[in-house]
Amino acid sequence: MNYFSSNFKLGILGGGQLGKMLLNDTRKFDIYTCVLDSSNEAPCKIASNEFHLGDLMDYDAVYNFGKQVDVLTIEIENVNVDALEALEKEGIKVYPASKTLRTIQNKARQKLFYKDNNLPTSPFTRFAYTSEVKEAIDHGSLTVPFVWKSAQFGYDGQGVKIVKSVSDLEGLPNVECIAEELVPFKNELAVIVARTPSGESKNFPVVEMEFHPEANQVEYVICPARIPEDVAQKAIDVALKTSEAFNHVGLLAVEMFQTHNDEILINEVAPRPHNSGHQSIEASYTSQFEQHLRAILDLPLGRTDSKVGGVMVNLVGAEGYSGNVIYENISTIMGLDGVTPHIYGKKQTRPFRKMGHVTIVDQDINQARKIAEEVKSTIKVISE
Amino acid sequence: MNYFSSNFKLGILGGGQLGKMLLNDTRKFDIYTCVLDSSNEAPCKIASNEFHLGDLMDYDAVYNFGKQVDVLTIEIENVNVDALEALEKEGIKVYPASKTLRTIQNKARQKLFYKDNNLPTSPFTRFAYTSEVKEAIDHGSLTVPFVWKSAQFGYDGQGVKIVKSVSDLEGLPNVECIAEELVPFKNELAVIVARTPSGESKNFPVVEMEFHPEANQVEYVICPARIPEDVAQKAIDVALKTSEAFNHVGLLAVEMFQTHNDEILINEVAPRPHNSGHQSIEASYTSQFEQHLRAILDLPLGRTDSKVGGVMVNLVGAEGYSGNVIYENISTIMGLDGVTPHIYGKKQTRPFRKMGHVTIVDQDINQARKIAEEVKSTIKVISE
Repeated sequence: MNYFSSNFKLGILGGGQLGKMLLNDTRKFDIYTCVLDSSNEAPCKIASNEFHLGDLMDYDAVYNFGKQVDVLTIEIENVNVDALEALEKEGIKVYPASKTLRTIQNKARQKLFYKDNNLPTSPFTRFAYTSEVKEAIDHGSLTVPFVWKSAQFGYDGQGVKIVKSVSDLEGLPNVECIAEELVPFKNELAVIVARTPSGESKNFPVVEMEFHPEANQVEYVICPARIPEDVAQKAIDVALKTSEAFNHVGLLAVEMFQTHNDEILINEVAPRPHNSGHQSIEASYTSQFEQHLRAILDLPLGRTDSKVGGVMVNLVGAEGYSGNVIYENISTIMGLDGVTPHIYGKKQTRPFRKMGHVTIVDQDINQARKIAEEVKSTIKVISE
Repeated sequence: MNYFSSNFKLGILGGGQLGKMLLNDTRKFDIYTCVLDSSNEAPCKIASNEFHLGDLMDYDAVYNFGKQVDVLTIEIENVNVDALEALEKEGIKVYPASKTLRTIQNKARQKLFYKDNNLPTSPFTRFAYTSEVKEAIDHGSLTVPFVWKSAQFGYDGQGVKIVKSVSDLEGLPNVECIAEELVPFKNELAVIVARTPSGESKNFPVVEMEFHPEANQVEYVICPARIPEDVAQKAIDVALKTSEAFNHVGLLAVEMFQTHNDEILINEVAPRPHNSGHQSIEASYTSQFEQHLRAILDLPLGRTDSKVGGVMVNLVGAEGYSGNVIYENISTIMGLDGVTPHIYGKKQTRPFRKMGHVTIVDQDINQARKIAEEVKSTIKVISE
């Protein structure tokens, strides 16, 4: 198939910031793009060739959209998987595959997948309802502390709770869930692996993630991670093995814990471009978005090593502000060395909403990290 | 003015490939953009917020378009300058200024500007008509060889002729022109300078240009130029002085000759992002397009040094092919290390038409140069 000069159409489910950055790299290759999103204010509305309004969880919306394209990809996991399966049967190339999405969408199934494939992850117990978790504690088959996670639709800061006593279970929805052993860890790491339909596979360097203590959102991503080489290699091996186990096509971001005795445990995966790879736009030979395109179009994968060290700072809405967004002091941070803001184009801010990110690059990763702190303390995402 | 969250509008005159790459960086900052171009198939049609159809040389088209924006810039010099002057008087920020464009649009006036500002350029004589050039040769006041250049609308490969005997003048249009001394040179160099309304100014490294012998179009751009440091510094000094002499705002690309005795002579300038800066997208801390935006929006300028060495190869239509374009072997070159194609999105190819470019980056500039040759000999821009 000739992506560069024919009637080829690439479909993207979701029109948020990841889609927006993916679209940016499709422009480089002049690939014809169609985007489906439920919001008329989606960041992807411009820069796509066709923007379609529709609910990503609706079978008909996804099916009818998918029938118009040659290759279909996602920028968000919450899409109608039955529609994807039907499209696959009719010959549309769907990356990631419906089967993979079905596994990943459900955290219990995702954990079982790791177990079945001998991939390291923390011990867990599966429950049909949260009420059963309470019973298990009462019967002594489960002990606090542990991490409660709803099986469906669990995202950063939602559907996850650290349970230290039975009373912490109060107020949680009575849904399918898992209780995960609370493993103390030194670092949260991530590795993004790209894999093509032909089976070519390449990994980006291991990155280190620092989380905001309250919002449970990534605050800094540091590339490369400042960890010993053998630990990094272990994390890379796990990530490559995970991508292969899924027989994955496209990007797979594998989030992992580095325990106190340097064990690597998979936390969760995202089958798409990921927040932990944004610094690749400025720091790597190939950005994660270009790499995702190369992978799903079965083109040769690009170099994944870094030109320079990179640190990524998430720009989230400041507490206490809701409404039309203002990026206070943005021109000040643009005066710092190697700083590039990425503004996602959401009109409204609210506390902890992801509004953009800032990349800081430097030959010296410690210098980049230092400037990142200055960026973090200077720019404020507030409202008018 | 708050570019990032208000009703601010940036206007771009011209919707070609330079505009397209400029638009790409406006997405990063979520800047609202309006583009004016005469072709409904312009590469800028997508990725701009508003696309307006209109003739760039038409007073009313440019004036009415400009009245709707806050800052107006160009991606091509051939625009109606009277309209720009009227807009400036009404408070629209026009970068580059109408005065600068008027000087640059006419090659005779451009050369006089260098002379008046003690900027080094080759000796020349100005003529009202080409017929007068012939008379000057007949009278012995001008001797062959020299370079004939039409004063107006001279571009790469057009409006320029090396005159070795009187007969070479035959067929040339009888227009205002200059006869420029033919200076033998070792290298063609270029330096891009960015300057803000506040007067902050930064230069990118000196690049070396290799021209296609027949088409008179740049074939390779090599960054950094492989020349002695003192020669590079001389070229940078000339470029900075030129930008200041114009009191320029935005990018100014200064093309220069390095003579056999290492003199630097200005060939011509372009007051906008330029072909000699495309490798900056992958090789520099700040791309020339981001830097142009920073400059015209009076934001702090970004770092202009390089992360890695970069070579740029122009993708021009192969001889003998016209029609719907095909990029033969594009996936082969994407398998080479550090190679990124940029396809401009023009549907039709014709011999020597600029259809895209390819950037090759590597820590070792000689390695990048080697891969660039492989790229050049592998990819072919042909028609269906």
